[in-house]
Amino acid sequence: MNEIDWIQSYIAPLVDAPGADGLRDDVAVLSASATTIATMDTLVESVHFLATDPIETVGQKLIRVNVSDILAKGALPSEALLSIAWPRARGEAEFKAFVQGLQRDLRHFKIALIGGDLVSTDGPLTLTITMTGACLGEGPIRRSGGQPGQKLWVSGEIGWGGLGLQAAISGEDSEAANRYRVPSTMSLEVAGLVAHKAAASMDVSDGLFLDAKRLADASGCGVRLDLDAVPLAKPSAILEDIFKQCCAGDDYQVLLAAAPGVDVPGFTQIGELTESAGLSLYLQGWRVNAPSTLGFEH
Amino acid sequence: MNEIDWIQSYIAPLVDAPGADGLRDDVAVLSASATTIATMDTLVESVHFLATDPIETVGQKLIRVNVSDILAKGALPSEALLSIAWPRARGEAEFKAFVQGLQRDLRHFKIALIGGDLVSTDGPLTLTITMTGACLGEGPIRRSGGQPGQKLWVSGEIGWGGLGLQAAISGEDSEAANRYRVPSTMSLEVAGLVAHKAAASMDVSDGLFLDAKRLADASGCGVRLDLDAVPLAKPSAILEDIFKQCCAGDDYQVLLAAAPGVDVPGFTQIGELTESAGLSLYLQGWRVNAPSTLGFEH
Repeated sequence: MNEIDWIQSYIAPLVDAPGADGLRDDVAVLSASATTIATMDTLVESVHFLATDPIETVGQKLIRVNVSDILAKGALPSEALLSIAWPRARGEAEFKAFVQGLQRDLRHFKIALIGGDLVSTDGPLTLTITMTGACLGEGPIRRSGGQPGQKLWVSGEIGWGGLGLQAAISGEDSEAANRYRVPSTMSLEVAGLVAHKAAASMDVSDGLFLDAKRLADASGCGVRLDLDAVPLAKPSAILEDIFKQCCAGDDYQVLLAAAPGVDVPGFTQIGELTESAGLSLYLQGWRVNAPSTLGFEH
Repeated sequence: MNEIDWIQSYIAPLVDAPGADGLRDDVAVLSASATTIATMDTLVESVHFLATDPIETVGQKLIRVNVSDILAKGALPSEALLSIAWPRARGEAEFKAFVQGLQRDLRHFKIALIGGDLVSTDGPLTLTITMTGACLGEGPIRRSGGQPGQKLWVSGEIGWGGLGLQAAISGEDSEAANRYRVPSTMSLEVAGLVAHKAAASMDVSDGLFLDAKRLADASGCGVRLDLDAVPLAKPSAILEDIFKQCCAGDDYQVLLAAAPGVDVPGFTQIGELTESAGLSLYLQGWRVNAPSTLGFEH
């Protein structure tokens, strides 16, 4: 199964509401309010988190994956509906711990839980959140607003998701493993920066290279990345190490394009949008070939 | 696991947004618009539908379970976000058929699909919809608006869900089995009747007895049901047969309370709300004891 192909072939043709933007973005605008957006994400045990992850971190990851989508559109998270398909083998103490992690992050990000569903399952723990967001501008900042010449900026550091997954699988109780389990999503202030400075924006969740190309594709242009400038979790001058970090998923940072001359405090400038289509990578001024797999295609 | 206990013990304490109404109802009001409601339901293979059910009916059931919640609040369904956790063993042809069933009902109920998520799973097919609704009045008709003396009305017929499940399990290709798979949800006109005539309303999804008692409890009163008046799928004067149909789930009809003298076209009057708390049942004028299990407690 290739999720993106199936969505394009079977689901996208069903979608014609203007607020859905042809499913080309991570959020939809609700018809009831031009400034209210909604996003939905599902996490499945052993696919999106490890069965061995402490259960309280799973609730936090669920919230943060969705918060990341909302902030990257220049909006503040507002409300959540939560579906829990809970395995019969996981008991009440685990449920309580799960809810505690959830509660911590609902409070931290000022999100109101307003409804949902709880069912039991013989399968893996399966969690879905629908989260609404209140846009700080007139609507969400789309992936598609970019133009050649605009500068590309990224929040935080790139690569923690990939490094952390390796650490978590190998059983290391490291900072990286913790960052994989509970992504260090940016603060709510990021929404204001996106709303007021970005022409195009999205969150980096499937790897920097892949997501940068997606933003450029949606904007009808190309993208140049200066690899020396990318703020890596584990800085390196070795191409293989750089690629590993830039092609891993689960970073949950914001990637935005802004007009030249615009400063984006707290973000790092890593390249620009170009006339010529596709992704071009530069290291110390030299063009280097992109890896064959740009990111986590799911 | 007892879902209702866990929700009350662990989830409800997290909920303080006024629109959520303490999770006492089937829908929440979004903060962005007082007349926009949202509901979320999850269906799990082998729990909420049979693994052998034709896959196109599963998409329809998913839509109808949610439409039922929206209509029962006096609102028209508006938008849907859909999460699909698709088993690796089910192939592309099945996915296509699933989407066709979905599309049929999205069109039928005039619902715009605006987003969602598609992931693969090693577990059972797990489907979640978040559906928004546009209230025809100033807000949703709650379960809690009932008062003693108001008459109780129900749409359609009661018992098809339970009869149909038996038929579907036994492999009968009967009308009842089809009605279990694709509940014959009422027409969109029901929303207007609820909005303009009902003081309290909810959908009957866990059995008439249990849901009638829930409506009465939420309204701080009791309920009297006249069993002769209940429009049964399979009419019977035998108490056991009546009980079986009135305690089965999956009916997806509307139960509403309206002031005496108000007529509700297309609905059947089946009793009234009472001063004294609890559920009291009458057959041909005689009080009969309620069964020990009133419905599908999940």
